[in-house]
Amino acid sequence: MKRAIVLGAGMVGSVMALDLASDPGFEVTVADVRDEALARVAAKAPGRIRTLKVDLGSPEAIRSTVAPFDIVLGALSSRIGFGALKAVIEAGKPYCDISFMAEDFLELDALARKAGVTCVTDCGVAPGMSNILAAHAALLLKPCHRIEIFVGGLPRERRWPFEYKAGFSPADVIEEYTRPSRFVEAGQVVTREALTDANLMDFEGVGTLEAFNTDGLRSLIETVARRHGVPFMKEQTLRYPGHIELMRVMRETGLFSKEPIEVGGVKVRPLDVTSAVMFPKWTYQPGEQDLTVMRVKAWGVQQEREVSLQWDLLDFFDVASACTSMSRTTAFPCTIVARMIADGRFARPGVNAPEALADQPGAVDHLLAELKARGVVYRAATLTA
Amino acid sequence: MKRAIVLGAGMVGSVMALDLASDPGFEVTVADVRDEALARVAAKAPGRIRTLKVDLGSPEAIRSTVAPFDIVLGALSSRIGFGALKAVIEAGKPYCDISFMAEDFLELDALARKAGVTCVTDCGVAPGMSNILAAHAALLLKPCHRIEIFVGGLPRERRWPFEYKAGFSPADVIEEYTRPSRFVEAGQVVTREALTDANLMDFEGVGTLEAFNTDGLRSLIETVARRHGVPFMKEQTLRYPGHIELMRVMRETGLFSKEPIEVGGVKVRPLDVTSAVMFPKWTYQPGEQDLTVMRVKAWGVQQEREVSLQWDLLDFFDVASACTSMSRTTAFPCTIVARMIADGRFARPGVNAPEALADQPGAVDHLLAELKARGVVYRAATLTA
Repeated sequence: MKRAIVLGAGMVGSVMALDLASDPGFEVTVADVRDEALARVAAKAPGRIRTLKVDLGSPEAIRSTVAPFDIVLGALSSRIGFGALKAVIEAGKPYCDISFMAEDFLELDALARKAGVTCVTDCGVAPGMSNILAAHAALLLKPCHRIEIFVGGLPRERRWPFEYKAGFSPADVIEEYTRPSRFVEAGQVVTREALTDANLMDFEGVGTLEAFNTDGLRSLIETVARRHGVPFMKEQTLRYPGHIELMRVMRETGLFSKEPIEVGGVKVRPLDVTSAVMFPKWTYQPGEQDLTVMRVKAWGVQQEREVSLQWDLLDFFDVASACTSMSRTTAFPCTIVARMIADGRFARPGVNAPEALADQPGAVDHLLAELKARGVVYRAATLTA
Repeated sequence: MKRAIVLGAGMVGSVMALDLASDPGFEVTVADVRDEALARVAAKAPGRIRTLKVDLGSPEAIRSTVAPFDIVLGALSSRIGFGALKAVIEAGKPYCDISFMAEDFLELDALARKAGVTCVTDCGVAPGMSNILAAHAALLLKPCHRIEIFVGGLPRERRWPFEYKAGFSPADVIEEYTRPSRFVEAGQVVTREALTDANLMDFEGVGTLEAFNTDGLRSLIETVARRHGVPFMKEQTLRYPGHIELMRVMRETGLFSKEPIEVGGVKVRPLDVTSAVMFPKWTYQPGEQDLTVMRVKAWGVQQEREVSLQWDLLDFFDVASACTSMSRTTAFPCTIVARMIADGRFARPGVNAPEALADQPGAVDHLLAELKARGVVYRAATLTA
């Protein structure tokens, strides 16, 4: 019996806890500062999930909280993700995390190596499965010419005007819409304005979506493009057509600006005001259905033939469990990899980007099979050029 | 020699002053609190325009300022228009005004009657000429079935994303986009949400524009629809297609809200923040060209035949004088009517909406001829049904 603790009892953290709680090999605890979030997750698996009220913004509190556990899982807001990662390493505990931190988690790699703990960060759907499949493709194709990733989390009902709701922090979404997007072209890292290079693409079961530049490659630029020598890599975000034009307009108007302006005698950041009025409209209501769509496509040579390898995910809100697609597609890669760390199948001291899993023989097949067992199906196809 | 004073040395006020200064019958003074605005207008007709530095937000200052003058013209911001009107009446001076005040100027009618002074308000293009032509049509057609007014001031260059610049206060534009729009249908006043009932319309010399509901009828509901018994009346605003969708989105998002919200420990009105970032992009740069497009159309019976009467205005920035179309089309009706008041051709003590001019025999023809002499041409047409 392994003792697991999930840091964060939000949408993703609660799915993680439930997944582990359904496994007789684990004793599961969830930590959060919000009583109602803890009560909500505990009520979903009575007697199977313990709760701890902890301020997860405090590294000290995290260090003492995780001490009695064998494996730690993280589902925290981007703001406190990096501090939590450091605290877990300092406590000498292995960690599998989906917190979308802005900081470079590889800065903590040396610390984790020294502590001898295996950590995997960004281990959700994208980043997460997108990284693992990209690295997997780069290993299968010799050479690999190009990798493209398209991903979006969307509401099933399209409501004017945004036709969008944010499965995670809306502030992180806007951050992706404003930060320059990094891609790899002809072996060079190039920077494009976010929200540009828009194309319409059809996805079976969803219809036409609009793909556009956002800064999504993150660690893949180093691990896949540089190390495996893949000369072209891009990741684009998918939304219902038209959303991105509104975002461009709001950005151009200055409504996403972080520069404080003086209005009526007080100083405010336009982004904070825009967020305050807009984010309530971007929030999923209880029971509101979402979907996740992702395509990872790689071009290259396999057995002396030009081919492309493609993985397609189309996942919907799960009515039976009332769990969003976003929380399920994000939580399960993390719980599956956490089990691999806990039972020693993945043991690589240091802070690992998820693509490190692709190096482990059989790991990708295991992940895809375990995801499928949970209803999250990646359809793989090999297409000849 | 008549002594005229123009209150306000902004875009419209300066065109008023120049128009009167070109007339040997007038001695012209302009009052404003802004030194640079006064210097600018004085420089355009050296020796012909006197300037007075006056705080026009102070009714007391206005009363003493206008005392030595025979006729007063107003081109003030909507915020101070009503106070100025009252002060001019109290000073016992006749007044012709284009300030787009939100208050009901007819509240001051009794005061003006008592003082024996003739005032005409809203005497620009729309409101202004639109009112006069609508009332004129209602008198020509027996019965008059329907009157429709379409009007827009637009930049000649269409720039993404708004394809719009505000010829007058952008705050007044947003006010028109948010206030419920009043129309007359089957003899009843009905209220529609602003920005609704959008239609594409082609205008020769401009192309396709989008017409949509705004609250523009103002005094016409009482003076033309009720008194003349015109059962259907509407006024719609014209913009380049697409503008209005962005305004709808921003309104829906809450960015035009006047309800203060708390952001980062301070209270702000979202509209104030939106205005602060957006209005600089809505401001004409010096020399930037605009156009004014208006159609007043009335259906009814003339000489026992069903006809429609139509007046079309299409006016462009005047390169020779570097005056915007908006300032010229707005200022000239006011200076022409001010002359009629000054020389006694229009004498009706009270506060008059501009449509009162239509009752005066020959006044509409005189106005249209004088406007044409200044290059502002209304093309009239009678169409058989």
